[in-house]
This record gives sequence, C-alpha cells and structure tokens, in this order.
Amino acid sequence: MAHNKTEVRKILDAVKAAGRLSLTAPEGKKVCDAYAIPVPKEGVATSAAEAASLAAGMGFPVVLKIVSPEILHKTEAGGVLVGVKSKDEAERGFATIMANAKNYDAKANLLGVQVQQMLSGGQEVIVGAVTDPSFGKLVAFGLGGVLVEVMKDITFRLAPATRDDALSMLDGIAAAEMLKGVRGAEPVDRDALATLIGNVSQLVADFPEISELDLNPVFATAKDAIAADVRIVVDWSPAPARFRPKHDDIVRDMNRIMKPDAVAVIGASSETGKIGNSVMKNLINGGYQGKIYPINPSADEIMGLKAYKSVKDVPKDIDVAVFAIPAKFVAQALIEVGEKKIPGAVLIPSGFAETGNVEGQKELQEIGHKYGVRLMGPNIYGFYYTWKNLCATFCTAYDVKGHAALSSQSGGIGMAIIGFSRSAKMGVSAIVGLGNKSDIDEDDLLTFFEQDDNTSIIAQHCEDLKDGRAFAEVAKRVSKKKPVVVLKAGRTSMGARAASSHTGALAGNDKIYDDVLRQSGVIRAKALRDLLEYARAIPVLPTPKGENVVIITGAGGSGVLLSDACVDNDLKLMAMPADLDAAFRKFIPPFGAAGNPVDITGGEPPKTYQNTIRLGLEDPRIHSLILGYWHTIVTPPMVFAKLVAEVVAEFKAKGIEKPIVASLAGDVEVEEAAEYLFAHGIPAYPYSTEMPVMVLGAKYQWARGAGLIR
Amino acid sequence: MAHNKTEVRKILDAVKAAGRLSLTAPEGKKVCDAYAIPVPKEGVATSAAEAASLAAGMGFPVVLKIVSPEILHKTEAGGVLVGVKSKDEAERGFATIMANAKNYDAKANLLGVQVQQMLSGGQEVIVGAVTDPSFGKLVAFGLGGVLVEVMKDITFRLAPATRDDALSMLDGIAAAEMLKGVRGAEPVDRDALATLIGNVSQLVADFPEISELDLNPVFATAKDAIAADVRIVVDWSPAPARFRPKHDDIVRDMNRIMKPDAVAVIGASSETGKIGNSVMKNLINGGYQGKIYPINPSADEIMGLKAYKSVKDVPKDIDVAVFAIPAKFVAQALIEVGEKKIPGAVLIPSGFAETGNVEGQKELQEIGHKYGVRLMGPNIYGFYYTWKNLCATFCTAYDVKGHAALSSQSGGIGMAIIGFSRSAKMGVSAIVGLGNKSDIDEDDLLTFFEQDDNTSIIAQHCEDLKDGRAFAEVAKRVSKKKPVVVLKAGRTSMGARAASSHTGALAGNDKIYDDVLRQSGVIRAKALRDLLEYARAIPVLPTPKGENVVIITGAGGSGVLLSDACVDNDLKLMAMPADLDAAFRKFIPPFGAAGNPVDITGGEPPKTYQNTIRLGLEDPRIHSLILGYWHTIVTPPMVFAKLVAEVVAEFKAKGIEKPIVASLAGDVEVEEAAEYLFAHGIPAYPYSTEMPVMVLGAKYQWARGAGLIR
Repeated sequence: MAHNKTEVRKILDAVKAAGRLSLTAPEGKKVCDAYAIPVPKEGVATSAAEAASLAAGMGFPVVLKIVSPEILHKTEAGGVLVGVKSKDEAERGFATIMANAKNYDAKANLLGVQVQQMLSGGQEVIVGAVTDPSFGKLVAFGLGGVLVEVMKDITFRLAPATRDDALSMLDGIAAAEMLKGVRGAEPVDRDALATLIGNVSQLVADFPEISELDLNPVFATAKDAIAADVRIVVDWSPAPARFRPKHDDIVRDMNRIMKPDAVAVIGASSETGKIGNSVMKNLINGGYQGKIYPINPSADEIMGLKAYKSVKDVPKDIDVAVFAIPAKFVAQALIEVGEKKIPGAVLIPSGFAETGNVEGQKELQEIGHKYGVRLMGPNIYGFYYTWKNLCATFCTAYDVKGHAALSSQSGGIGMAIIGFSRSAKMGVSAIVGLGNKSDIDEDDLLTFFEQDDNTSIIAQHCEDLKDGRAFAEVAKRVSKKKPVVVLKAGRTSMGARAASSHTGALAGNDKIYDDVLRQSGVIRAKALRDLLEYARAIPVLPTPKGENVVIITGAGGSGVLLSDACVDNDLKLMAMPADLDAAFRKFIPPFGAAGNPVDITGGEPPKTYQNTIRLGLEDPRIHSLILGYWHTIVTPPMVFAKLVAEVVAEFKAKGIEKPIVASLAGDVEVEEAAEYLFAHGIPAYPYSTEMPVMVLGAKYQWARGAGLIR
Repeated sequence: MAHNKTEVRKILDAVKAAGRLSLTAPEGKKVCDAYAIPVPKEGVATSAAEAASLAAGMGFPVVLKIVSPEILHKTEAGGVLVGVKSKDEAERGFATIMANAKNYDAKANLLGVQVQQMLSGGQEVIVGAVTDPSFGKLVAFGLGGVLVEVMKDITFRLAPATRDDALSMLDGIAAAEMLKGVRGAEPVDRDALATLIGNVSQLVADFPEISELDLNPVFATAKDAIAADVRIVVDWSPAPARFRPKHDDIVRDMNRIMKPDAVAVIGASSETGKIGNSVMKNLINGGYQGKIYPINPSADEIMGLKAYKSVKDVPKDIDVAVFAIPAKFVAQALIEVGEKKIPGAVLIPSGFAETGNVEGQKELQEIGHKYGVRLMGPNIYGFYYTWKNLCATFCTAYDVKGHAALSSQSGGIGMAIIGFSRSAKMGVSAIVGLGNKSDIDEDDLLTFFEQDDNTSIIAQHCEDLKDGRAFAEVAKRVSKKKPVVVLKAGRTSMGARAASSHTGALAGNDKIYDDVLRQSGVIRAKALRDLLEYARAIPVLPTPKGENVVIITGAGGSGVLLSDACVDNDLKLMAMPADLDAAFRKFIPPFGAAGNPVDITGGEPPKTYQNTIRLGLEDPRIHSLILGYWHTIVTPPMVFAKLVAEVVAEFKAKGIEKPIVASLAGDVEVEEAAEYLFAHGIPAYPYSTEMPVMVLGAKYQWARGAGLIR
C-alpha cells in the first residue's frame, strides 16, 4: 500500500502554521486516507438522486446530514437521518432533510446533504499510537469499551510494526478470543485489521511530530476494519534522536575493552584497603596475561610493576583504563585517556549522577564523546572477562569459565551474581557492572556478546533502558542467535518509584516493556533468582527440535506438579501415541500410569529409569524430557544421577541430544546428585518441581522466537 | 429476610411429581419470590386505568403484553409494547393492545394485559449456583456479557455464603471496578447485590436437589438488583452427605495416634532391608520413649524387644499400629487391631486403590468403620511427630523439633519435605503421609494440629480434597488461630489430568479451589518450594500489627526489586511521614534516597545499618521491615547478621517484636549469614529479592484473614 507522505506533510505544515497542537476531524480523515487507514466513506449530494447513488456506492446503512454553514445544531434542525437502508429511503431522506432545514432556517445556505457510511456491528477495537521517552513511537491495540479499560487489556509494539508484529497484537490481548467470533459472532477480518495497525504504525514512524494518535473505535467486522473516529495530537519539538555509535565501531571498541591486551589502572595503589589496590590484586592474582600499567603520580612501582604518572607516559598502546580515583580527579584523567587514544574507560568511582552530581557526569560524557572514549559506569564494580582471566574490579575475583555473560545496573545485584555463580559453580564468560550508564549500556554489551564466541547466553539486570529502541533493535537481532534474558526492575508502579529515586531514570510503563521485550525475542525473568537460574541452565540445555515434552517420573506426586508447571511455562505435554505408550508400558509395573506423565511408580530399580529414559531419547517423536526422581534405597540419588548421565552420554555419542531437566525429591543426598547432573548437562533441582520446568520453558521460548522450532 | 421453605418445597414436589428435571419460568419466579430474590414486578390489568396504576406502582418504563390463551405470537398480533414511560402511555397502550389483539383474532379470549417492569441500564451481572463433587453447593458471581465469558472472570463461594462472603465476591472478580461506576456510570447497590447473592446461596443450601441455578442476567443498578431470567435445574438423587466423625472423637483418636504411648509394629522384622525392620530401627534409634510392640507370628524377640504373634496378644493398651506387611495380609490384621480397640492404623503398604485394587481398599474402610479404627493411608511412608521422638516410617529419620506440621498426599513429595527440612535445618512438629486417604485426611490433621501446642503452622500438599467442604469448614476455623498453607497440585487442566491418572481422584475446577481456599483463610502455595519456604519462615516471623512496611537497603538495586516484590505480594510500602524521613536522613549519607525504600547506600559501616534498623523497630508507625543487605568489606555478611540479631534481641527484651526479613546480595559468605539470621528469627535469603518478601506477604495474608490486622 503506497503511502502519500507529501499529502500528510502538507496537512501537518498547515496545522503547524496555524499554531495548533491537534488536527481537526477532516484533517485527521485526510491523513488516514493518505495512509490507507479506512475511515467511513462519505460524500456530499446536491440532489436526491445523487444521495441515493452515493449511498448505494458505499453500501447501506448510511447517515444523512444537512451541510450548511449556518446550521450548527443539525439534529435540532431535523437535519440528520440515521440508519437509512435503501436507495428509496435515501431519496426520500434527502428531500425530508432539505425541507426540514429550510423550515428551520429559511435564510440558511443549504449546500447539500452529506452521505456517510454508517458503522455498526462487528467488534469495536482501539488502535492508537504513543511516544515513549525510551522506546519512541509505539503502536497500541485493544478492544473497545469500558470493561477493557478497566481490565487494562492493551498491547504495544514498536512502530513501524511488521505484519507479523501486527498479527501478534491480535493474539496479544487477554480477550483475543473475542476477535475469533464468540457465541456465533463472525470472526473479524484479521488481515484488514493487521493492515490498519501496520499503516498506523508506519504513519507515526514517518512523522515523528505525531505524538499521539487514537482510532477509537475501529469497527472490525468479517469484511473490513474502519476507524469511526480519528484523533491526532502533534508535538512540534519532538525529542531529538539519540546519538548511536556505528555497529562496527562498537564491535571494535568493545572487543578492545572486554578482551584487552593492555590495561591501565588509574589510581593503582600498594595500600591494602584502597580500591586501586584491590583492582591491582584482582588483575595480577586473577592470572591476567596481558600488560598491566599502574598509573599513580607518586609511585615508581606498584606490586612489582613499573608505575607511570599518567597514561600518556606509557610507551605502548593501552586498550582500557580502569579508574580507581576519587570523582573529582576523573575528568582530568579521562582527558589524558582520550589524548592517549585509549578506547575505553572503566569508571568505578561513585559521586556522579547517583549522588546528584549530574553536571560532573555530563562533563565525562562530553570528554568521552570528544575523544572517542567509551565509558563504562561511573559508579560500578567494574567487569570480569573470564576467558582472559580478567577481573577488572575491586570486588572478589571470579574465574569459573563458561558461556553465560551477565550484567547488572546495580552493584548490589552484581555482588549477588558473583555469589550465586560461585555457589552454583556457574561458568560465566563475563560479568559487567553498568551503573549510571553514562555511555556503554545494555545494547553495546549485546553487540559485543553477539560476536563473542565465548558467550552463548546474555542475562541482564536493568532498571531502565536509556535507549529502549536501540536495545530492542539489537536484541531482536541478537536473540535470533543467542538467548537474551532480561530482569527489568521497577516492573510495578511501586517498584518504578524506587527505581526513579535510585537512578533518576524514569522507569517506563511496564506493559510497554513487557510487550517490546517479547517483540524483540527477549526472555523476561520475573525475579532475580530466575535470571540467575536461566543464566545457569539455558546454555547447558541443547536446543529442542520440537514441542513434544514427555515427563518420566518415579513419584506420581511429582508428575502432577511437573504437569502443572508445564502449563505455567507454556510447554506442551505430548499426547502419547498408542505404540509409544505400549513401548513404555513394557518397562513399568502394570499399575504404572499410562500416557504422559509416564509414571514408572516408586521403588523401581535403576533399570526402569534407564529403559524409559533411553526410550525417550530414542523415539524421534519425543523432543524433550522432564524427569521426576523419587529417592528410594532401590535407586539412590547418585545411582540415578550417574545412570542418567551415562544414558545421555551414550546418545550424545550417537548424535542424539535432547533437552533433559530433572526434579529431585528426596533426602539431602539429592543435592549432590543435582550438582552432578548439572555438571553433566542435565539441569537438576532438589526439592523443586517448578524450577526445572521453568528453565526448560525459557529455552523453548527462546527457540520458538529464534525460529528454531516450527 | 424470612425465606418461605414451604412454598419452595411445594413447587419442587410438583416438579418431581411431573417427572421434570428443570423448573418452568413461572416456577422459577415463584421460587425467587419465596427467597426474596428480586425479579421484575408484574401484574395483569383488565382495564386501562388498572394498567396505568399497576405500571405506576412498579415504576416506569414497563412492558405491556396481551394475555390470551389463543394468541401465541404476541408480537405478530401487535400485542406487545415496550418502553412504556408514563401513566398516559400505559392507558393508551392498554387500549391499543386490546384493539390490535381483537383485530388479529376476533375469537380470541382476551384476559387482559400483562404489565411488567422493564429492566435496563445498570450493570448486567450473573449470579448462579453449582454443585461440586467435593465442595457441594457453591454460589457464583460474575459480570454478564460475552467478553466476561471469554475472560472467565467468575468467582465462587461455598453456599450458604455469609454477607461478608457475598460482599467479597463483588471485589473478587478482575473487573470489580465496573461495579463501582466507571466513566460516570453510577455504582451498583452493593447491599442489594450481596443480599441477592446471599439469598441464592441459602436457597441452594436449603434444597440439595437444586443442582444448578442461573440468574442471567441480573440488572444491578444504583437502587436495586433484579434477575431478568431464572433457570433452575434439579437432581432428584443428589450425592448423600459424607460420613464425618465427630470433632471430639477426631481429637481424641488423633491425639492417641499422633502422640502415642504405645506403638505396635505389625510385620516388625530383624531383617535389614525389610520395611518392618526400617520402621523398628526408626522407632528405636529415633529415641521414642513409649512402648514398642513388635508383631510377627514367627519371632519371639525383635531388636531386643519381646515380639507378639498378634496385637491381641499384647497385654497392655496400644495407641497406634504401624502396618509393614504385604497388602493381602492387611485386612485380617486390621480386624485384630479393631478387636484390640486400637484407635489408629498407619497403613504403609501399597497395592490398594493406587494400583487399581479399589475393592481391597473399600474392605479396609469397612473394617475401620466397623471397629472405629482410624486409617492413615494406605500407600504411605508413615509419619513423624518430633516432640515424641517418633519416626513411625520406613524412610530416613528426622528429629529437628520445631513448630511446622507438614503433610503430603504423595510419598515423593514427602521425601522432598524431609530433604528440604534437613537441608534448611527446619524445625518441624510433624510430617505425615496421607497417600490414598482411605480415611484420615487433611481436615483430620487440621483438627489435631489446631489443638496441638507444638504446632504453630500447618502446611499441606494435596492433589484432591475428598471432602472439600469439610476441609473448608475446618480450615476456616483453624486458620483464625494458626496459618494453614496448601499446595494444591493438579491446578491446571494438564496437571489435573495427571492427578486423575495418579490417584483416581477427579481434580476439581481450580478456580473453585482457589476461591474456596481463600474464603477459608488458607494461604495457597503456588509451588512446592513455596510451600516449604512458607513452612520454614512463617512460624519464625512475629505477627505484624499493621500494614506499614519499610524497606531499608544498602543496595539501591535491591530496593527496586524488593519494591516490585512488595506489589506482587500485596504489601504496602509505608508513605514516609516527614519527621520519620528526617530521622532516617540523620543516619544516612546526604545522597541516600529519601522515602521508602530507605536507601542507606553501599559502603556504609555497621553503625548505619544498626541506627536505621533500630529506628525502624522503635517507631510505632512502622510495622515490618525488609532489609536489603549489600556485601562490602566495610560491613561483611556475618557482621551484618550479628548486628541485626543483636538489635532484634535488644528490642525483644523491651517487648517490641516486628517481622523482619532480609535479602542478602553478596559473595558466598552471605549463605552463612542467611542461616545465622534465620536461626535468630529473621528469615533471610541469599541471591533472592523475591523470597523474603513472599514469606512476609504470606504472613500478612494470614494475619489479615485471621482478623489480627485492622
């Protein structure tokens, strides 16, 4: 559908010239026409015959209205007829209205009768657009009516929305079933509605000055979708587009920062307790193999390394400078970093925006921008990149190599990441603190981790997204390759208030975050622990090849709870084919439960677990397994753990890999078994039937979003 | 409002005599009249004047309809007038209708004109009643209309419903706001609606043969609530009421069973690996101080104790017999138990209903009933009662005394309870396996634990409630004194299917469970781990005296997530009074965040935590504290844990106790700190901002339900 930009520009220019902030109804209608957004057909008839033919052309029923500059109260003048159902009625109606009008005001100038398509029936819906400070233009969709307002059942997508986005909005509301035709009602024309949504989204994307748009209601019927009312609000000074470094520049700089060959520590110190000392210790004791340059104006040597007064005195190239000096000295040192052409500064010091020193932070941003230095922080713990044995932080060291990259906006959450990782022996590629995000933010990290071969999942905690649109665009691309998990704090209005007292950032409407993150293929963690568990389990699990999940359980009780969790996590329990059911039955006691869950019953020997799990891996119709283990003396926890690991290894050798998770019900020995299983590629959890299903559900969510499951 | 039972009985008798299964509309209307359920007023006028006066009496608008046995198609005959708005119109209408009718059929016998109150406007709602196999009669309430059907926004209460129950239903739907008047609409008359709901619930409670009732729609306006349409379905052979032992009998028998002075082990054995051997070992090694009587026909002595061939040979009284023999021998041994007048049998053996042997289980039930022996199981692990050092089970022993009583329907879940308890060092009073629940069920346990001074919380896992109504009634009473937590498995339709394959029990509609459990004051756990965490934390927390929660956090990031969790868990962050804000500010850095959360900022010394927590305990306007700890070298985890415990002890000595929970963000040392805090009365969780708030939220939910918070 070609859009007439010139026409819209003309209308907007006129509105601007008139100094107005909203469009009149006729202007709104013209804008809609230019973007193929259906509005009621209308025309002006100057004769009864013309009224009849116009009406016939647009389809009955129609509304007839007198057109006269002198008659403001048309209804009072008997100048309106609704529900006109035939050509005959239209002809007669024209005559009646003209006569009434003349009768009402003999001096009125009667220009004719407006014939307008009358909308009714179908489903009333709302299509709109808003401008969000972080995400920019968004298109919105919901059902019409008061009840929907009360239920707040509305869904958003970034504008412009693709056709798939628009179609997904029709399924994205709680009342989606209403569009499919309930109680004999006809289903709406999904194509027409999606096209309308798409056109609205393109319109606001093309014209940033359109700040709000409302089509309310839109009558969606089985044959079309027509906006009965249009409201367009404009803002003549929209927020300027944010500066964004080029993709290749980000990749180049971030690679030098995250995987440096030479690190300078500004404020390096020999004195225990100083941050500059902790950073030095972490670098050296962490086993970092690159060059380390301590920078300190009053020392010649620090921890056995030659010290320099300034980075400018260092004879070789430096990739990243870690700042461990008080806030007031940062700006000057940053200028020197810029002059030395170091691409990255890790700004550990606090005392900037988070304490009200917004100006100080702005100064750093300006210096960074001027010299092309990317800034991490300020007000951060630093970062870890394990594959370089790099702990560029004053916190405790961490060195378990793995493939999960984590980041946090808050230092406290960063410490929780370290603690959890160490406790769970979670392998990580990187842990990064983003703090005040004066420059480097979540999308820079995504851009780096996307091409970092040591990273297979990215898990991020954030309180705001300074540039939500940039994040969404990058996440949409990256999540096709690697799972992206986000814990967005300040989800709720109460939480959002705390976020804003903490970072001075305005937390966005959570529903918008929720929808846009989903649109971008991001897995949203509901809780801190969930974020951590996802980061730990998702990279361990192979990608499922299909939707068929089978539960094999020794404890019937676990089977029920695991089934509950499958529904909660949008997993589909396979309807067990008769032959497969029979095959399972061969291995289990006669009173074991049929179907899915496969209930092998308690007290079974290792062989029963072995046989049934083997069958689950063998049969190509099964795509994933959830195991429910019940601790018995016949099959103790470690016996179970080892047999599962063996069967999995056996099939892996044959090229068969399926995601398997396990719930372990038993005495404390199950904790050791869970650890063993996890280390062998089977995420396993003691005393929980929810956690294993939750992580499997997240893997599925990602795989579906990335188009890996048909 | 007096209800006319005689009138309803008469109508139902007539319907039964006619062999019908539903009532006609006039019958339904009469039933409503008898129970003061408002229906449209109506009357027959034989003159125009009478029509006008009838109409005026019921209020305009009214509908007029010809009354004539010969005229079936009233509208066709011109015999219907809707929207009659005045006495004049009514008079004229009467004449018109009579004339039309005469004109239509001159031979028709015209009996007059029916004048009926015309309903419109207000909010359309549905009030109904259903019969649930477990809960019996339930009253239902929801908004009318298709959209509500799609959203499945309906709520249930046990019938009869109290006035409070009925009022709570108006707030119990997602669209509750609609009743309060949205967009200028008038709010509905809540009293009238609650009265109508109450009357419907009383009607179905009084007449068990009414199996279904629908008032759809009911027009709820600012001045009344009137049912426009009534549908009543009857069932002439309703399920008979279940047998229920008397309260005092339950208490007497359960006390002997759970706290026995003498235990017989039927099938006691010296042979390692036998269940009868494990039970003996657990009893003896567990330190049980009562009498133990091994029963075994082919042994004189077992593990140093004199053995008997039958319980009947034991010279003294026995309180409980633990069965450790194969299923086929159970019935005979149970008869002997009955003859010995032992009040309880713990039926560990499997091989009954769960394997399809329903008849065998029925036989046990009949024997138990005949001899007055209460049956636990069959198909269970047994039970623990720590305060008697009693491990009447073949599972691993457990002896950490505490105040949480747990039960599980499934053995696997029982093992998870043992493992979690041991791992978390959770003190318990009892752990009980209920298995097939042939007799003793959740409400028997509730009745016992209610009066058991060693128990302060009851946490139960169940898949079905065989007698949901009995459970709800007991839970409603018990939960006023002690928190009752339930994990109802088979919540979802997929889970419910597995439940039914597992136990042969029909899992009820989950929404009904949800509503009735809430009505009964039960805290519903969403997940196994939640059930366990509730059992561990709730008894540790003092009961809050009010709703004002304050977060004190060292990590701003935790503050945001803790705030999110407060909203999720229905906790109210106190709006900080200016004087209190100023008082907190004295202790924290100038850039610490104002209000609530109190952000003391990272890197603060122990003193800052001390001062702010002390202030939180001191000020009577604050009722609960949530602490967000951030691991730093200035205030290491154990230093924090000890200072909190100290402050809490100091205030306890002064008689001030408030619930405090803590979220610990830091390296692995926080795990030790969490354990220390928990042991000192402060539920604390590492790497989680959700769990501490969730358990505090549950404590609040209980306290509100029990009427302890105004």
